[in-house]
Amino acid sequence: MATDFRRKEELSELTDRLVDTYQEIGTINQLGHCPLPNAMAVVDCLEDLKEIIFPGYRRRQNLHMGNVSYYIGDLVDKLHDELTQQIARALRHAEDMHKRCTEGVDFEALGQQQAIRFLESLPELRKVIALDVQAAYDGDPAASGLDEIIFCYPGVEAVTVHRLAHQLHAQGVPLIPRIMSEWSHSKTGIDIHPGAKIGPSFFIDHGTGVVIGATTDIAPHVKIYQGVTLGALSFDKDEEGNLVRGTKRHPTIEEGVVIYANATILGGDTVIGNHSVIGASVSLTKSIPPNTVVTIEKPSLRFREAS
Amino acid sequence: MATDFRRKEELSELTDRLVDTYQEIGTINQLGHCPLPNAMAVVDCLEDLKEIIFPGYRRRQNLHMGNVSYYIGDLVDKLHDELTQQIARALRHAEDMHKRCTEGVDFEALGQQQAIRFLESLPELRKVIALDVQAAYDGDPAASGLDEIIFCYPGVEAVTVHRLAHQLHAQGVPLIPRIMSEWSHSKTGIDIHPGAKIGPSFFIDHGTGVVIGATTDIAPHVKIYQGVTLGALSFDKDEEGNLVRGTKRHPTIEEGVVIYANATILGGDTVIGNHSVIGASVSLTKSIPPNTVVTIEKPSLRFREAS
Amino acid sequence: MATDFRRKEELSELTDRLVDTYQEIGTINQLGHCPLPNAMAVVDCLEDLKEIIFPGYRRRQNLHMGNVSYYIGDLVDKLHDELTQQIARALRHAEDMHKRCTEGVDFEALGQQQAIRFLESLPELRKVIALDVQAAYDGDPAASGLDEIIFCYPGVEAVTVHRLAHQLHAQGVPLIPRIMSEWSHSKTGIDIHPGAKIGPSFFIDHGTGVVIGATTDIAPHVKIYQGVTLGALSFDKDEEGNLVRGTKRHPTIEEGVVIYANATILGGDTVIGNHSVIGASVSLTKSIPPNTVVTIEKPSLRFREAS
Repeated sequence: MATDFRRKEELSELTDRLVDTYQEIGTINQLGHCPLPNAMAVVDCLEDLKEIIFPGYRRRQNLHMGNVSYYIGDLVDKLHDELTQQIARALRHAEDMHKRCTEGVDFEALGQQQAIRFLESLPELRKVIALDVQAAYDGDPAASGLDEIIFCYPGVEAVTVHRLAHQLHAQGVPLIPRIMSEWSHSKTGIDIHPGAKIGPSFFIDHGTGVVIGATTDIAPHVKIYQGVTLGALSFDKDEEGNLVRGTKRHPTIEEGVVIYANATILGGDTVIGNHSVIGASVSLTKSIPPNTVVTIEKPSLRFREAS
Repeated sequence: MATDFRRKEELSELTDRLVDTYQEIGTINQLGHCPLPNAMAVVDCLEDLKEIIFPGYRRRQNLHMGNVSYYIGDLVDKLHDELTQQIARALRHAEDMHKRCTEGVDFEALGQQQAIRFLESLPELRKVIALDVQAAYDGDPAASGLDEIIFCYPGVEAVTVHRLAHQLHAQGVPLIPRIMSEWSHSKTGIDIHPGAKIGPSFFIDHGTGVVIGATTDIAPHVKIYQGVTLGALSFDKDEEGNLVRGTKRHPTIEEGVVIYANATILGGDTVIGNHSVIGASVSLTKSIPPNTVVTIEKPSLRFREAS
Repeated sequence: MATDFRRKEELSELTDRLVDTYQEIGTINQLGHCPLPNAMAVVDCLEDLKEIIFPGYRRRQNLHMGNVSYYIGDLVDKLHDELTQQIARALRHAEDMHKRCTEGVDFEALGQQQAIRFLESLPELRKVIALDVQAAYDGDPAASGLDEIIFCYPGVEAVTVHRLAHQLHAQGVPLIPRIMSEWSHSKTGIDIHPGAKIGPSFFIDHGTGVVIGATTDIAPHVKIYQGVTLGALSFDKDEEGNLVRGTKRHPTIEEGVVIYANATILGGDTVIGNHSVIGASVSLTKSIPPNTVVTIEKPSLRFREAS
């Protein structure tokens, strides 16, 4: 009962054939290029950022006002260096991809500028995230307190990561915001494109299956439930049949709107007026005036005795 | 091409501003408090608990009746110590949060009592979980055997974690059950509140998007599919407009009921009678008598030729 | 404030009671058997396989045509050894489970044959996966480029893992393909049974909640969205009331079909004809001719002013 070591000799020929495919099909490998951002390093940055936003909850404990500056100062310093490097890679790669000349461009300096601008936004973002946490408590009778929300609410996790990713996206940093949002999608089942604009006091309950598209615009004090899609109605194509990218394709949700589970709201011209309530499973492709409750005429049910 | 180190001097001022927000907005940091439970330590306990329930399947292999006592004894000992500490933290924190006096309270002794009571429940829980595994095999023609179910069925994973979390919740342990259930939600897309009461031989197939609320009551031999919500109809508010917490808000599902994909059943007074079958995408807010098949009158479909 | 060490003495009695349940309820433990495949080792193989398919994107950077052979050759060698061992375990376990005689069977040699056959399929699989990546770019106006798709698209992750798992499943390797597909389900919320046959240029957008059953058959150039179920209509039982396993229970989707969010298509005889479009939330249990657009007659909406 043993491996036949002679058969292992076939493996070197297989390796050659695999390497041949890297030349035949060059679209899905990165060979001979400057390094891409590293997804693991980006995720590590996110974990450090959550330590700064919610100190004392996760990794490091026994923090108090006497020692927290050292801890936070150290994290900020480390984030500066790591973000500088990862953003520099993303910027260089984006230029490479567009085949623009990168000779003499100091990507590390550009990366540092972006990293510092991002870090400077954190005190303000932290205030907004505190409002999201409070909105979750105010919106869910099952919540025992703010601690449970910070520890256990996937909606808060997804919105926190979104606010960080959106800041980088708004600064024009390529690729890294999407790596962040997809990591959060993987953990929470909530898929928010970093381009979406979301006002403070936003709450997503349960959240699995939520999709919020890149050009969605959400005002303050909105609450949505699991399975809600804020999506595109259709995609425009140009004269050559290619998709048109960059137009507003996703809806606008005004202040104080509540959207119940599995509702679907589609289209870039669709506006849900303030303080409207969209019932579970409602599907909308047109605008709704303010202060309107929309429910579906439930399909008739058929009842029969079980055989 | 280099980082400008002078710009790093700005970072210490940024750190000061971040630390200032910890005083301005104290709701989302834990500074100067006794340590909270550690989410990673709680997850490690769950992994150890699954080793005890399903020995030989996951981490440790080559176990047999001659050596399994050593392995399990060691895990039980380690779990005793870790759960004692984490439960003690959760209990102390809950008292702190309610601003009750914690002087002279021996939280570690209370934590130990709870940990031992929980560990003592494991032999009985293991019998119930074996029934869940069998129910999965009996309910899915794609299953090749019990091993595949233990390795690969997210419904079994979610229900196993639920049974552990529910035991701690029933004992009155704060916060830790929710950390457990949310970890399972993150892995499986199945969101079961630890408060839900679930009888033996329960099977969730596929499972992504399932939501089972805190006051749901499920009898034995129930089967549900992906996207099913057992939820609340509306939230009561008290005279000051605050949510009323703690009332029965979620449905009761009697013995032998089957609920197909994406059905929604809402409300604390809603009872689905035994052996009833709820069809896919049915939405119910009223009770259903026993032995009833409920399906939706399908919406008319429109057919046209593709352009 | 301390643990009572005398109470720890109870733990050895508890350990005895737990070990007793391993004899009482032997269905959910593996004691005294040859080792099962190790789920962690299988997942490590998947990560190595993704390095081979998308070199330069994930773990190892700074690869170029001059050094990539060493890296890939080393991964292939390591995969050969690990897959040989894990497949050998799965094969032996399957025989044990069916109580067939395993005396004198050289499972390691069989495992090696299967491992090499699988590794030999990788150059061809890589070409198919490159078509999936291109289909994602062609199908989503929010995609900035192929790199974003390889880094961030859960649909591409799920389909890549599926193509690997399906190859092993088609070779007759037990258990390991399901461990792979469930790991991908956990990360992406997309549940594809390894048995499903899927043609090239397949794209799943967003993806959370997608379920694709074991006997589904999907032609090239199909696109589906989040929450789509390709499932079974009902399960046949034999004369003794046991589920019949192995029949075609899931639909056939022909070339160029698009299926929008939350649509449900059920049944082994259901065929969706080529270039048809199935609208969001449509539920089908019957076949649809080619070039047909199917949408639901939307339920009437009720509008009232918010109180």
